[in-house]
Amino acid sequence: MKKVQNIKLVLEYDGTNYHGWQRQKNALTIQEVLESALETLTGQHLKVIAAGRTDAGVHARQQTVNFKIEDNKIPVERFHLALNSILPPDIVVKDVSVEDNNFHARYSCKGKTYCYRILNSRTPSALMRNYVYHISKPLDIQSMKEAAKHLVGTHDFSAFRASGSSTKTSVRTITKLDIIKNGKIIEIWIEGTGFLYNMVRIIAGSLVDVGEGKLPPERIVDILESKNRLLAGKTLPPQGLCLEKVIY
Amino acid sequence: MKKVQNIKLVLEYDGTNYHGWQRQKNALTIQEVLESALETLTGQHLKVIAAGRTDAGVHARQQTVNFKIEDNKIPVERFHLALNSILPPDIVVKDVSVEDNNFHARYSCKGKTYCYRILNSRTPSALMRNYVYHISKPLDIQSMKEAAKHLVGTHDFSAFRASGSSTKTSVRTITKLDIIKNGKIIEIWIEGTGFLYNMVRIIAGSLVDVGEGKLPPERIVDILESKNRLLAGKTLPPQGLCLEKVIY
Repeated sequence: MKKVQNIKLVLEYDGTNYHGWQRQKNALTIQEVLESALETLTGQHLKVIAAGRTDAGVHARQQTVNFKIEDNKIPVERFHLALNSILPPDIVVKDVSVEDNNFHARYSCKGKTYCYRILNSRTPSALMRNYVYHISKPLDIQSMKEAAKHLVGTHDFSAFRASGSSTKTSVRTITKLDIIKNGKIIEIWIEGTGFLYNMVRIIAGSLVDVGEGKLPPERIVDILESKNRLLAGKTLPPQGLCLEKVIY
Repeated sequence: MKKVQNIKLVLEYDGTNYHGWQRQKNALTIQEVLESALETLTGQHLKVIAAGRTDAGVHARQQTVNFKIEDNKIPVERFHLALNSILPPDIVVKDVSVEDNNFHARYSCKGKTYCYRILNSRTPSALMRNYVYHISKPLDIQSMKEAAKHLVGTHDFSAFRASGSSTKTSVRTITKLDIIKNGKIIEIWIEGTGFLYNMVRIIAGSLVDVGEGKLPPERIVDILESKNRLLAGKTLPPQGLCLEKVIY
């Protein structure tokens, strides 16, 4: 019997120049670049599974992926440096480990933490342009924090998912939702057991509506109950979003 | 007599995609992009003077520039938004003001603050790759701080300037040199009345040699006295460097 290894990689990537994680025809994705680097290294065509399939322009500081490899001849401790020397500098392997065969980057995942970053200042930033969403109108953090409280817990998040998306259930659990202001940067940290399509960016958009005074904080409760996507805020652009952590 | 206005702009830019500040044939520079945006806005061909002519790949958070304009028909308060809508997102006007006619971005400058950023961690960073220099070997901050003390003050910095450069005098004054560690980021903050060509990047390279244990801190005194470029450290790459502030 052939020996199979189940290898886990922790990745950091800058999503700016990619059409998201998942392999696509006619568009460069992170999955494709990683799988082709693995092929260069191992000579094998390997399929990589990610904890979260980030969208075009979305970043990851600790994306977690795994793949199974038969008859691997390369010592696992060499994957790290070897892959980084093949990968472009906007995709970096931070850690490599061998897991037992049941480990699955997506199904074994117990939770994920995302952060959405807003630059709340009069002028945009040249240096942070790819990593924040710029809003010049001053946001009221206190109202945003109040609104955020209503989203924590287990709810039907139908109002906060991209219209047209179809997963069996739209019930999800948000375990933590913190809003932190650091100078001109407002960070929306969301931890949950799972997320619907565009859910974090729609929640961030709704909290911005609250921060701008367009929505009173308690309206979030009505929006949740309405299950109506049209009542929630807009989907904020991808560059402010980063997958920060995957919990197993 | 025509009315002349002397306009000052404060700029933030990401130097990654430019061949530095100064206009060149066959290479895109920040000066060229700014002057062409000004021409689009005013219909006039204007010459812009910068406080510091940053090199290819070097960033600026508060570069200061000025230009003189005759018969300007655009209210100065409109320059800000108008220029930002013409400029690419990696060059941003942060502030606009009218100065008296004697103001000269370079000659009126009393000092400049640069910061050189090092990522001192096992693996490089995809998200910070354009804004830090990655060193995996752990650096000894205490020795770097000790070495830095010897550079503060007025000295002949011949050993710390690019060989082949020829300014009348190589005596410069460093008014402040602080080394700050923030997690895995080491920041070298240098404030001075003026800098020789590549001086900050050579000082950073020499401090890294000290931090790696290749040079004892007190050797910096001998290197200064030697006036010999070959004894100082290497010129660190541009992406770690940022012009943080210009003092008038």
